Amino acid sequence: MKIKLEKLIIGESLKTEQLKNQKFNVFWGLPIMSSDAISSVAYAGEEILIVLIPVLGVMAYKYMFYASMCIVALLFLLVFSYRQTIDSYPNGGGAYVVARDNLGTISGLIAGSALSIDYILTVAVSSCAGTAAITSAIPWLLSYKVAISIFLIVFITIGNLRGVSESSKIFGVPTYLFVISVVIMMITGITKAHLGVHIPEPIYAVPKATGSIGLFLFLRAFASGCTALTGVEAVSNGIPSFRKPSQKNAKVVLELLALIIFIMFGGIAYLATIYHTVPNADVTVVAQIAAQVFGHKSLMFYVIQTTTAVILIMAANTAFTGLPLLLALMAKDGFVPRQFSKRGKRLSFSNGIIVLAMLSSLLVLISKGDDHILLSMYAVGVFISFTLSQSGMFVKWVRERTIGWRHKALINGFGVIVTFFTVILLGVTKFMLGAWMIFLLIPMIVILMLKIKHHYMEVACELKLSVDQRPKNIDISMQKRYVIVPIDTLNKSFLKAFNYARTISDNIIVFHVSVDDDVTNRLLKKWDQYNLGVPIVVKKSPYRSILEPLVKFIESEEYSAGINDTITVVIPQFVVKKWWGNILHNQTALFIKTMLIRRRNIALVTIPYIIDK
Amino acid sequence: MKIKLEKLIIGESLKTEQLKNQKFNVFWGLPIMSSDAISSVAYAGEEILIVLIPVLGVMAYKYMFYASMCIVALLFLLVFSYRQTIDSYPNGGGAYVVARDNLGTISGLIAGSALSIDYILTVAVSSCAGTAAITSAIPWLLSYKVAISIFLIVFITIGNLRGVSESSKIFGVPTYLFVISVVIMMITGITKAHLGVHIPEPIYAVPKATGSIGLFLFLRAFASGCTALTGVEAVSNGIPSFRKPSQKNAKVVLELLALIIFIMFGGIAYLATIYHTVPNADVTVVAQIAAQVFGHKSLMFYVIQTTTAVILIMAANTAFTGLPLLLALMAKDGFVPRQFSKRGKRLSFSNGIIVLAMLSSLLVLISKGDDHILLSMYAVGVFISFTLSQSGMFVKWVRERTIGWRHKALINGFGVIVTFFTVILLGVTKFMLGAWMIFLLIPMIVILMLKIKHHYMEVACELKLSVDQRPKNIDISMQKRYVIVPIDTLNKSFLKAFNYARTISDNIIVFHVSVDDDVTNRLLKKWDQYNLGVPIVVKKSPYRSILEPLVKFIESEEYSAGINDTITVVIPQFVVKKWWGNILHNQTALFIKTMLIRRRNIALVTIPYIIDK
Repeated sequence: MKIKLEKLIIGESLKTEQLKNQKFNVFWGLPIMSSDAISSVAYAGEEILIVLIPVLGVMAYKYMFYASMCIVALLFLLVFSYRQTIDSYPNGGGAYVVARDNLGTISGLIAGSALSIDYILTVAVSSCAGTAAITSAIPWLLSYKVAISIFLIVFITIGNLRGVSESSKIFGVPTYLFVISVVIMMITGITKAHLGVHIPEPIYAVPKATGSIGLFLFLRAFASGCTALTGVEAVSNGIPSFRKPSQKNAKVVLELLALIIFIMFGGIAYLATIYHTVPNADVTVVAQIAAQVFGHKSLMFYVIQTTTAVILIMAANTAFTGLPLLLALMAKDGFVPRQFSKRGKRLSFSNGIIVLAMLSSLLVLISKGDDHILLSMYAVGVFISFTLSQSGMFVKWVRERTIGWRHKALINGFGVIVTFFTVILLGVTKFMLGAWMIFLLIPMIVILMLKIKHHYMEVACELKLSVDQRPKNIDISMQKRYVIVPIDTLNKSFLKAFNYARTISDNIIVFHVSVDDDVTNRLLKKWDQYNLGVPIVVKKSPYRSILEPLVKFIESEEYSAGINDTITVVIPQFVVKKWWGNILHNQTALFIKTMLIRRRNIALVTIPYIIDK
Repeated sequence: MKIKLEKLIIGESLKTEQLKNQKFNVFWGLPIMSSDAISSVAYAGEEILIVLIPVLGVMAYKYMFYASMCIVALLFLLVFSYRQTIDSYPNGGGAYVVARDNLGTISGLIAGSALSIDYILTVAVSSCAGTAAITSAIPWLLSYKVAISIFLIVFITIGNLRGVSESSKIFGVPTYLFVISVVIMMITGITKAHLGVHIPEPIYAVPKATGSIGLFLFLRAFASGCTALTGVEAVSNGIPSFRKPSQKNAKVVLELLALIIFIMFGGIAYLATIYHTVPNADVTVVAQIAAQVFGHKSLMFYVIQTTTAVILIMAANTAFTGLPLLLALMAKDGFVPRQFSKRGKRLSFSNGIIVLAMLSSLLVLISKGDDHILLSMYAVGVFISFTLSQSGMFVKWVRERTIGWRHKALINGFGVIVTFFTVILLGVTKFMLGAWMIFLLIPMIVILMLKIKHHYMEVACELKLSVDQRPKNIDISMQKRYVIVPIDTLNKSFLKAFNYARTISDNIIVFHVSVDDDVTNRLLKKWDQYNLGVPIVVKKSPYRSILEPLVKFIESEEYSAGINDTITVVIPQFVVKKWWGNILHNQTALFIKTMLIRRRNIALVTIPYIIDK
């Protein structure tokens, strides 16, 4: 039953050969690589207003414009920097690879852990923001927002376990739909405002100003808006997915992406200004603008909300491709558990997908589906990885000194300064809001990764055969084989194990641990009756533990095996075919096995006795 | 580390001989057996008012008095009935035993499942009500009420895992403190009211009446108040814990218990009437009365809240003794998984305790710490078990026809009618509020229990040896032993397994599943180099499953073992001593074992290779 259910959800297994990547031209590559980046305009403007409006009132819109300009400037700087990464890393230059190759292991791990945290946050933030788009349109769903967000994550998870990757063109459609519908909203909204058509009142009144602009407030607003820049690095990670000339295509996509973000981010900020939108916990800024421009409950209002929700889900989906790939890369380097490098039945990295789904769901639960809390942590990790990636490129230029290196180093060097400044800024302005967690988590994860690597190295070293080491030539006739068969009840299952023991040795001891005197007496009576010609050893267990007396016996001088002899313990285990059947039995056999296996001189034999019932 | 932590929380193991019961006289038996019953007066009156006040306004208090009288009458009827149970079952007459012995298996199981549900609800209700007593005194804790309730459950659970049972006199103290402090409150409150001392205004205004009393409303109020009667059956369960003459002592305790409930339940109802207390989600009725009688934030107010909280925690504790014992009883009869009948390290039935803790915590989480929701389900199960226990006694008298059976049958028969009527009443008035779940759950649990019993019978039957069945005399020299050793990497761990295989057979095949061509080629090269003199079989696995090719090979004609031969599979497994180490390795060995063990003709040998790192 379990297997059938798994097939229904996950689908048939796929062969390794079926692993191949579809290649994209610019037209399809653009929407597929950039859903994460483009979707962030759905909440970035709102984040700025949340900082400014309570203090500045109506004046907030003016400074929102300035903050947005700074962010766009930063965006173009990033584009210039990443163009250079694309040129140098034709196989994809994620921050982990760039930092590891140019700055060393620790920097690579910092970038890797920052990116991992970020991917988890992307899923949590995007699913919460997607839910916000849905609940803004259908308010009675508001009380179910956590459930909806988790449902979205589960939905994406199943899709990814089935092996849905970004490799299908269909994933490009929602991005275009979102872009087109927002552009229509911009044109309609701006036209209406300038033609003097009646503009509906703001849905929520703009509060009175309680303070004036200061440098710190402005920087906080800027920092909050930086969430708009998350996802930009996706293009340079995805170069191998582009058609030839792939590097050139990737660069064109990167430039178009910047242009789209510039237009949409600016447009939404401008609309928020002329329509005096006020951030609210229940209705998103984009939904408010759509309601004012097209009328509440108009068709276009629902179109905007739907395309917003869908592109945010797509954005979460990109993390489901990104994190498992990153983990697989780090697993191959030995920094994360090796299980992350194995492909599942449908060729996706199932373990990475499942871990991502669980951690992001946990974040949604803890934050109660409120994306503003998560967004405070979000941008920090992104900018840490930006900084490390830029630094890596800078070091590369300085070290290699290829043609034009001064120019290139200048661009990346400037990038380092600006992104590093942004990290500090984010750290300071958002520290109490959650950024402290990132600064705490990254070193912890890095130390853990180093420990894991160390462990793998040690194990490999222990297991490795030296060239001349080969099996001793064992004289089988000389070898005395000690066998112990534990007994609880004298039944068919025991008898099967006992028979097997007889085929490998004449030196058998049957061992019984007595917890209940009545049971033991009954057993001994039966034992005499059957007369199997083998001694039975009975030990009392005052603490009701089955294992302790057995281990003690093996170690005691009473037992004739020497300290270097291998003792074979033959354990009868009856197996019930029904999947729930095994819950109903004291899994003593399993327990004995997990404990005995930690001993050097033991060979554990399990003899299954299958019960069809 | 895990073991140390366990010892710290649970304590040292105890020997089976240390299992003995302390015996109580009437003075200590009364408070220890009755904390569940007495504590229910803390919420029973409130439950009646919740039904009546919104409809009747000030008139509610009058009908509360009538409803309370009916409940007290029912209480005395139960006392008469249970006196007879005590006489007939000197070893404790729980509803499960009485119904099973006199009415048959199904009735016993219905009583058993109703009781089990009830014990779980007792813990959830009592911990929530205890929390309500705490938050009524310290309002800023209100937003943490779920966390506090769960904390209380965890606290009691650890206590019980350590083997804290009701057997300590110290558990009797809180009951007396609660009784004394409530009696002081009653005397003070009534005296103040009748001496004309200024009575403070009610904390919450009594709402205007919106309707008038009707039969259905009155019956609903009566049904709600029936929660006051939960816990009465504890005395007849606990007869073996009384000093000799234990049956006589138990009966005295039962009568005193009824008297105490009569006085306290009546007293609180009377105080609520003269002080016009109105139920409120944040402050309990008892807390409101205490605040009015003694003054808010007076010492006595806090004394009342503290003793209420403590006795409610004691009440939850009784369920932690009751349910595990009941489950152990049913496990011995084979109706619940056998694990419930084993005592843990500290002689308590650990599995039952843990299951109870988890399920009751779940209930607290689902109900968000609101005991009113849980109380709707609570009384139903209690009265179902009352009814079955009474019916059992009735059938016993009619069947045995001992001296005075007519008189006894009359009392229990009347008991059946009244308690059955109450079940119907609870079912009807509380159906939509949650009672439907009980009526749905009980048949489901009964069916499950029957299935479990059936399964155990079948397994026992399959395993049983007939008297003349004995091991075949195997000619060991004739036996051909087939051995397969799976290989992934040629390392020390493999070599140890391979050496072991050589000691038991000359018929060894080394089996490799190829997932990655590079890895396989490297292995084959090394294999040739070491020249172990044994063939290696390589199979490709297009679906990356290690197991399928192995099973296919065993089943294929390619392999020379016949269908009835036992094939020994020797699995090298390296064991990392650090507890977290095993997470870091692909547990392929474990996976192979869990799958192969389901095959009849396999003997599984695990050769551990211990790595100390």
